[in-house]
Amino acid sequence: MSANPVIFNNTVLRDGHQSLAATRMTTEQMLPALELLDNIGFGCLETWGGATIDAGLRFLKEFPFDRLDAIRAKTKSKHMMLLRGQNIVQYAHFPDDIVNAFITTTANHGMDIFRIFDALNDPRNMGTAIKAAKAAGKEAQGVICYTSSPVHNTESFIKLGQDLEDLGCGSLCLKDMAGLVPPRQAYDIIKGLKDSVKIPIVLHTHETAGIGATTYYAGIEAGVDSIDTSIIPFANGTGQPDTARMLALLENHPRAPKYDLDALQALREHFTKVYEELSDYTSFANERVDADALKYQVPGGMLSNFRNQLKEQGMEDKFEDVFKEIPVVRKALGWIPLVTPTSQIVGVQAMLNVKFGRWKNFSPQATDIALGYYGRTPAPVDTEVQRIAATKSGKDPITCRPADLKDPGMDALRAALAAKDYPTNDEHCVIQAMFPQELEVYYKSKDAPAAPKPTKTAPTDRESIDLGSGPRHYGINLDGKRYAVTVDES
Amino acid sequence: MSANPVIFNNTVLRDGHQSLAATRMTTEQMLPALELLDNIGFGCLETWGGATIDAGLRFLKEFPFDRLDAIRAKTKSKHMMLLRGQNIVQYAHFPDDIVNAFITTTANHGMDIFRIFDALNDPRNMGTAIKAAKAAGKEAQGVICYTSSPVHNTESFIKLGQDLEDLGCGSLCLKDMAGLVPPRQAYDIIKGLKDSVKIPIVLHTHETAGIGATTYYAGIEAGVDSIDTSIIPFANGTGQPDTARMLALLENHPRAPKYDLDALQALREHFTKVYEELSDYTSFANERVDADALKYQVPGGMLSNFRNQLKEQGMEDKFEDVFKEIPVVRKALGWIPLVTPTSQIVGVQAMLNVKFGRWKNFSPQATDIALGYYGRTPAPVDTEVQRIAATKSGKDPITCRPADLKDPGMDALRAALAAKDYPTNDEHCVIQAMFPQELEVYYKSKDAPAAPKPTKTAPTDRESIDLGSGPRHYGINLDGKRYAVTVDES
Repeated sequence: MSANPVIFNNTVLRDGHQSLAATRMTTEQMLPALELLDNIGFGCLETWGGATIDAGLRFLKEFPFDRLDAIRAKTKSKHMMLLRGQNIVQYAHFPDDIVNAFITTTANHGMDIFRIFDALNDPRNMGTAIKAAKAAGKEAQGVICYTSSPVHNTESFIKLGQDLEDLGCGSLCLKDMAGLVPPRQAYDIIKGLKDSVKIPIVLHTHETAGIGATTYYAGIEAGVDSIDTSIIPFANGTGQPDTARMLALLENHPRAPKYDLDALQALREHFTKVYEELSDYTSFANERVDADALKYQVPGGMLSNFRNQLKEQGMEDKFEDVFKEIPVVRKALGWIPLVTPTSQIVGVQAMLNVKFGRWKNFSPQATDIALGYYGRTPAPVDTEVQRIAATKSGKDPITCRPADLKDPGMDALRAALAAKDYPTNDEHCVIQAMFPQELEVYYKSKDAPAAPKPTKTAPTDRESIDLGSGPRHYGINLDGKRYAVTVDES
Repeated sequence: MSANPVIFNNTVLRDGHQSLAATRMTTEQMLPALELLDNIGFGCLETWGGATIDAGLRFLKEFPFDRLDAIRAKTKSKHMMLLRGQNIVQYAHFPDDIVNAFITTTANHGMDIFRIFDALNDPRNMGTAIKAAKAAGKEAQGVICYTSSPVHNTESFIKLGQDLEDLGCGSLCLKDMAGLVPPRQAYDIIKGLKDSVKIPIVLHTHETAGIGATTYYAGIEAGVDSIDTSIIPFANGTGQPDTARMLALLENHPRAPKYDLDALQALREHFTKVYEELSDYTSFANERVDADALKYQVPGGMLSNFRNQLKEQGMEDKFEDVFKEIPVVRKALGWIPLVTPTSQIVGVQAMLNVKFGRWKNFSPQATDIALGYYGRTPAPVDTEVQRIAATKSGKDPITCRPADLKDPGMDALRAALAAKDYPTNDEHCVIQAMFPQELEVYYKSKDAPAAPKPTKTAPTDRESIDLGSGPRHYGINLDGKRYAVTVDES
C-alpha cells in the first residue's frame, strides 16, 4: 500500500444506473450487493439523490426515504447524495425552510455527505444547504461544475473552490458531468485547488468522450484526494470509469490504492444480472456518444435523449441546427454550464429558437434564467435577450438570491398532506414539495395491482413535445428528468 | 501549435483492421481514404506487414506487393510496416538471404520505415533486418515488446532500447501489444529511454483493457516522440485509441498536436461504411475483453479467439484451467512475451498441458522454444522441461542465433517458382518462402470465378483442432494467424 493512496468512491447505486439505465435500479436489486460494496473500503457510497428520488417514486413506486433506510441499515460505509442546492432534487428553487427540512431529515436517516451543486455555479444557491448539512453534523461537499466557455478558466474554477471553502464546505468536488474536462486542465485545476484550499478534493467525471479515465489519472498526479468509480456494466461509457479498470490503470503508481479484485469481480457479476433485468432502459444510454459529445460539447445523456426528442418531433433533419444553436443560447444566457436543469432548459430553448425563430418563443425556464431567477449567471445575460424576456413575461429582472423571494413553505405542505390524510412528517412534506403528483400516484398505486411491464420500444419517461400553434403546456423529460414547459407562439 | 507537439502515426490500414476485423480490409476499401489520410499530416501511415500479407493473399486473393504499390502510388506520407524480425511476417525463422531480399524489395516498393520486433526480445533475431533496412536507405525501427514477468522490469526494457540503438536503429518503438502496460510504467520506460538514447521513440498500445489512452498520455508527459492512433470504428477496444479522441484528450496540453477534425470526421464516415461491409469479421473481435484481459494478462485478440477454439474443442469448461496454465508455460519457457507467434505457441501448449497432462504432449513449436531454436529466452528455460523437450524431440539445445543454422534459400525458391511457371522475381521468392500453398491457390484462383461470400456464422480462418489420439497434423489459426502444429500422444 502506498503512503498517500487515492480513495475510490463508488457510484453504482446512483450515478451508475442514472447514466446507463435511466435511473431504474430498484432497492431490491441493490440489496444483494451491499455487503460486498460495504466491505471493500470505498471512501463513500453514492446511494441517493440526483434523479433517483424522482425516478424511484415515479417509476418504481418506492418512497425515497424507504430506500435510504433499507440501504443504510445494511451498510457501515459513509453514504453520499447529490443535491441540486436550492433546487434540492428538483428543477426550481425552494424556500430555505424546505431545503433545511430536507437536509435535516435526510441527515437523520443516516446520510453522511451532501454533495451540493448549483447549475450556475452561484454559491448563493448552495449556502442554505451547506449550512444545513453542517448544522446536522454532516459533511457539506461543495461542487464546482466544470464547463468550457470564454468566461470559464482554470483560475475561475479555483476561485469558486476557495469561495466554497469559505462558505464552510468540508470538501470540494470538481464535477465534470459531460466528461469533457481535458486531463491537463483537470490537473491544473486540482493542483491549484490543492495549493489554495485545505479541505479534501474529489474528482468526478464520465467516460462519455473516452477521456474520463485519463482525467482521473491526471487528477491523481495533481494530488486529488478521491475519485468516483462505478462497476461494469453500470460503468464506462456515459457513466463513471470502472473500478477494476482504474486499479489496473494505477498499477505501479505511487498513489495506487488496494481494493479486493475478487469482490469487485463478484459485484460485476451481480450487476451484470441487474443490467440484463433493466434491458428495457439500457439501450438508449448505450448509444455511441463519444465523438458527438466531443463535437457538440454537451453531456452524453443530453445528446442521446435529445436526438430521440427531435425524432419524435419530426425534427431529425434539424439536429445540426439545434446543436449549433446551443452555444448561441448559452452565450445569450451568460454562459451557464450544462447540467440539470440548465442542460434541459438550454436544449429546449435551442429547439424553440430553431423551430420558431430566435427568441420568438421563450420558455418560462429560459425566461427566468435571463431575468436572474435562477441566480447569478457566469457572465451577464445579453441585454437585448433580457429585454425580450422581460417584455414577453411581464417580469422584472432580479439580482438578489432567488430564494430570498420565496416565502416559507413547510406549513402549507403539512396542511396539504393532512387534507389528503397522508402522513405529515418532514419526509412527506419535502417529497410533497417536489413531487406532489407523483406522491399522490404513489399512494393510489400502493393498493392497486402491479403496473404492467413497459414495452421495449419506448421508455415511459419520454413523451412527445408538440410544437404546434397556441400556448400549450407540456411535461417534458430530457436527460431522464422531467419539467414543465409552456410553448406559446404569441 | 505547441513547441514540441507529439506526432500521431495512423494504423487504420494495418493494425486497425487486424485488431478489429480479422485483417479483412481490402485494398479497394482503402483507396478512397488515402487522399484524406495522406494530407492530415500523420507521422507515418502503417500500411503493410503484420498479418496483412498473409490475410490479404489467403482470404482476399491480393498479391501483397500489389497493395503496397497501389497505396504507395496515391500517398506521399511515409509508410511503415510491421516486421517480425527473422520471421519476416511468418511464424518461423528464415535464412538471412531471404530476410535481406524481402526488405530490399519492399524498400524498392517504397516502404519507408521497418518496425522490427522479435517475440523473445532477442536482438540477434532483429540484426539482419535492421542492417538490411539501413542498407536500403530506410529507417529501421527497433521494437521493445512490453510484457510483465518476474524478469522484466523498467530497467530491462531500457537496456534493450540501448542495445537496439547500438545495433543501428533509427528509432525505437515500445510495443504494448496486449494493452497492459501501466501508464506509470510507460512513463518510467519512456523517460528512461529519452534519457539514454538519442533516437526518436514511438509508443504503441491497444485500448483492450481500457487503459491505452492513459498510457499514451503518460508517455507524452515523459517525452515520447510519437504515438499510434487509428480511426473509429477500427479504433479503441482491441485496437489503438481513436485519433479524434486523443486530440480531445490532449486539449490544453503543451504537447497537443493539430490535426484537421473535419478530415478525421470524413475518414470516420468512410471507415464506418467499410466496417459495415466487414460485418462478417467484426463480431468476434468486438467482444468485451477489458476485464478478462486484465485478469489473464494476455492480448485481447488471443483471448477471444482462444475462447472460440476451446468451444470448438468442447473444452469450454476448461477455460479457467487453460488460462491458469499460461503463466506456468511462460515460466517454464523462460518468461517469453506473448506476441506473434509466442502467444499462439504458449496458448496451444497450455491447452495441451491441460488436455493431456503437463508436458505430456509437447508441440513442435514449444519444443523449439525450449531448445533455443527461437532465440534467447528472457530467463533460462526450466532445465527439466528442456530435458523433456530434448528427449521427446531427439534434438539438441542450441545457444547460437537460430538463423545461423539456416542455409541460404533464395536460389531454391526461384527454382521452385520457375518449375511452376510463376514469376521468379524477389517479390515472388519471398512470398513463396512464407506462403507457398497460399501463393499456389492465389494463382489458381486468379482465373477461377469469384469465391462465394463466407457465411456469417464462422470466419473461414478458424479451424477446429482435434485433440484425439495419434500423431496428427493441423493448421491452426489463433489471433488470426496460422501455423502448423503436430499433436502426438506418444
